[in-house]
Amino acid sequence: MARRFTRVVTTPAAARLPHEWNHPFVSLLSDWGARDPSAAICRAVIMGIAPEALIVDITHEVEKYNISHGALMLWCALPFLPIGAHLAVIDPGVGTARRPVALETARGDYLIGPDNGILLPGAERLGGVVRAHAIENAQYRLPIISSTFHGRDLFAPAAAHLALGVPLESIGQQIDPHQLVDLDWPAVTVGPAELEATVIYRDTFGNLKLSGLTAHLLDALQGIDHGERVSVQMGGTNKGARTVEMVWAPTFGTVDVGEHLLYEDSYGRLCIAQNQGNAAESLELAEGDLVRVTRAGAEQERQAAE
Amino acid sequence: MARRFTRVVTTPAAARLPHEWNHPFVSLLSDWGARDPSAAICRAVIMGIAPEALIVDITHEVEKYNISHGALMLWCALPFLPIGAHLAVIDPGVGTARRPVALETARGDYLIGPDNGILLPGAERLGGVVRAHAIENAQYRLPIISSTFHGRDLFAPAAAHLALGVPLESIGQQIDPHQLVDLDWPAVTVGPAELEATVIYRDTFGNLKLSGLTAHLLDALQGIDHGERVSVQMGGTNKGARTVEMVWAPTFGTVDVGEHLLYEDSYGRLCIAQNQGNAAESLELAEGDLVRVTRAGAEQERQAAE
Amino acid sequence: MARRFTRVVTTPAAARLPHEWNHPFVSLLSDWGARDPSAAICRAVIMGIAPEALIVDITHEVEKYNISHGALMLWCALPFLPIGAHLAVIDPGVGTARRPVALETARGDYLIGPDNGILLPGAERLGGVVRAHAIENAQYRLPIISSTFHGRDLFAPAAAHLALGVPLESIGQQIDPHQLVDLDWPAVTVGPAELEATVIYRDTFGNLKLSGLTAHLLDALQGIDHGERVSVQMGGTNKGARTVEMVWAPTFGTVDVGEHLLYEDSYGRLCIAQNQGNAAESLELAEGDLVRVTRAGAEQERQAAE
Repeated sequence: MARRFTRVVTTPAAARLPHEWNHPFVSLLSDWGARDPSAAICRAVIMGIAPEALIVDITHEVEKYNISHGALMLWCALPFLPIGAHLAVIDPGVGTARRPVALETARGDYLIGPDNGILLPGAERLGGVVRAHAIENAQYRLPIISSTFHGRDLFAPAAAHLALGVPLESIGQQIDPHQLVDLDWPAVTVGPAELEATVIYRDTFGNLKLSGLTAHLLDALQGIDHGERVSVQMGGTNKGARTVEMVWAPTFGTVDVGEHLLYEDSYGRLCIAQNQGNAAESLELAEGDLVRVTRAGAEQERQAAE
Repeated sequence: MARRFTRVVTTPAAARLPHEWNHPFVSLLSDWGARDPSAAICRAVIMGIAPEALIVDITHEVEKYNISHGALMLWCALPFLPIGAHLAVIDPGVGTARRPVALETARGDYLIGPDNGILLPGAERLGGVVRAHAIENAQYRLPIISSTFHGRDLFAPAAAHLALGVPLESIGQQIDPHQLVDLDWPAVTVGPAELEATVIYRDTFGNLKLSGLTAHLLDALQGIDHGERVSVQMGGTNKGARTVEMVWAPTFGTVDVGEHLLYEDSYGRLCIAQNQGNAAESLELAEGDLVRVTRAGAEQERQAAE
Repeated sequence: MARRFTRVVTTPAAARLPHEWNHPFVSLLSDWGARDPSAAICRAVIMGIAPEALIVDITHEVEKYNISHGALMLWCALPFLPIGAHLAVIDPGVGTARRPVALETARGDYLIGPDNGILLPGAERLGGVVRAHAIENAQYRLPIISSTFHGRDLFAPAAAHLALGVPLESIGQQIDPHQLVDLDWPAVTVGPAELEATVIYRDTFGNLKLSGLTAHLLDALQGIDHGERVSVQMGGTNKGARTVEMVWAPTFGTVDVGEHLLYEDSYGRLCIAQNQGNAAESLELAEGDLVRVTRAGAEQERQAAE
């Protein structure tokens, strides 16, 4: 019987950090783009409050309004970032009733952003949400709050103050973490001898990230070794069903140039790629498309057995 | 009778900064793009001279050679940046007779760049130009000056030295601020019961910034409350005149998805947008287009009264 | 008789640096792009190991898999960067047998990246490779090494540790620098009264960088003064041979808007440009195209003499 997972917590060993870390650290993620000065302004606001903070821009090129993409980028990056205050603003509802929130994770980070689900996968990646507070206290915001740029007026100052050690409870009233708005994150289905997952992201190389992790694949196929072949059934939006065989490979360079492969990306996630090519284009696969992974030849065996 | 403003100084309350700010701070803005290493080289030159400086890249994606865009980005960003040395290089005349200059503002900043108008709106936003000097002193430049990259050889070293406390008068001879090259910045006309402004910028969301500020609109319409409707008459370059009604709204989320709105952007400037859409495309409005804003229904009332 | 150069070492005077420089400094260059969080993750990994390091992203927008482009960007930038650890990862062979290496330059820098040639032109620009070591020691890597993201797991930690002062010999076993993989870098041919070079890069303005330096041109033409005209013969891939005359100019602004020019870019390299235009488009020149530069009128004189 198939089991469904909507999200899986994994903390890679690579996330281990220097034990004596004691610098204020702030990261930023948004869909503001590099052309407009928004991201730089937030960075400068943070510097104005916390000049000693180390600051990293995870990315500001998330697809406009795409909360899931932002959540995925955050999920990828956070385990490799120092413990700190992490700002993530994809905020189609800016200026409306959606709450600005700050979450504390089990690892000791603060995640700051709108209460629209963007922070939750990242929070689980860091051990889950320990407590949540609304961002309300005027003392930790800019003097005037615009209706359209809460990143600058509200989220950046909150992140800077939290990074400096302002206690979370000073930021605003406590919220029940179970009442935080959840994210509509595509499921992964681990069935007997097959894995069903959704393409959730196409990176700049045309590699396709799936909603499933390596752990799911190993579970579904009861183990598989590098070099063995899998059969990937796809049913794209405009395309009929089709099946492509490829190797379960440790990396691009182990298959010939132009060949497709299923591999574990550097975050533990299943990906489909083409060595030195663009898998999204060559396979005509897009975000939202379902794929079904079985062991190569398994289908024929199944049909022969019937 | 209509009054014309070419530029308005407003210092948002949000610009207040920590009183004890005493870090060297440098910001950079250019049209060099993220692909070429130019911006990084300037940043490194600054670090080499002022390793303790905090540095922010406002943007390097200003449209090539577009001095007005650069001036607008600087105008937006500066009030939110710490007091410091701000480098802005959109410089189609590099290597010719145009002067490299450094301006001191009333707030205490230094603005560094070519004397082509790019620095002036930003300077006024910080209280105006107090004094101006040419950048001439070989002591504060790189040893060899190329003909094509003054950002690296001349402007970045000047900014780094000024941020470190080198007195402005050491940089080069004094210039009469009234002789600085001015910018051809579109006007805004505040007429009786109407505002005429120009689209001066289309951001990455397709929102359209106008040459007018909220203060101009309130003046023209003798006040208007959020939720009231305005009539926006447009005469695009390739299009006939047309009129679209929209709400004067505090933010995107207060109108339905797909609806247009006139709102104050987070810098006090009038903008036309479409909630979760692209106003530039849906309204076929481009930079340079004139718009005329009246109270909705005012035109009919006027015609009826005639 | 024509001589061929494949690479020329020049250390611009501008490369002189503060004598008391003693900050850990790290630079990063890659083809990861600004949308994915890869570059930010590497930066954060470096911060986690060396929080006091100054870090500069040279560019992460190098064309995917284009090792030559990456090598050129590094060649341009390094002389203007403080002495430090410089990471350059264009790595189509990630996860295969290609070695991760760290090189020490005569200037005192460490260059870190895959052994595929990307580091060599930059190393020569800094005086050449003094010694080379493989990156092997598990102590200076992240705890788990993925197959696809050595930038994060291996190169960034090595760079951070080297910047902090970890001795190069601790990183891994020594390699003979002559056995490093070389780069297929286009040649420049200095013939009697003519220079033959290849277009090696088109920048974001459409300016075309050649494989030759100013020194080569001066050598070929036995000197030439600014303002004199040259004849540029081009044989594009899809185009017949054609010749365009242009000025050998010190900078864009010395020729009329729309005119072409041959000039020395700010790194000592020969470039073809169009004042306030896009030379790549107007001349239909692309990377890989050969150009032949002679003194204007020289061809006619030669033919007349025959």
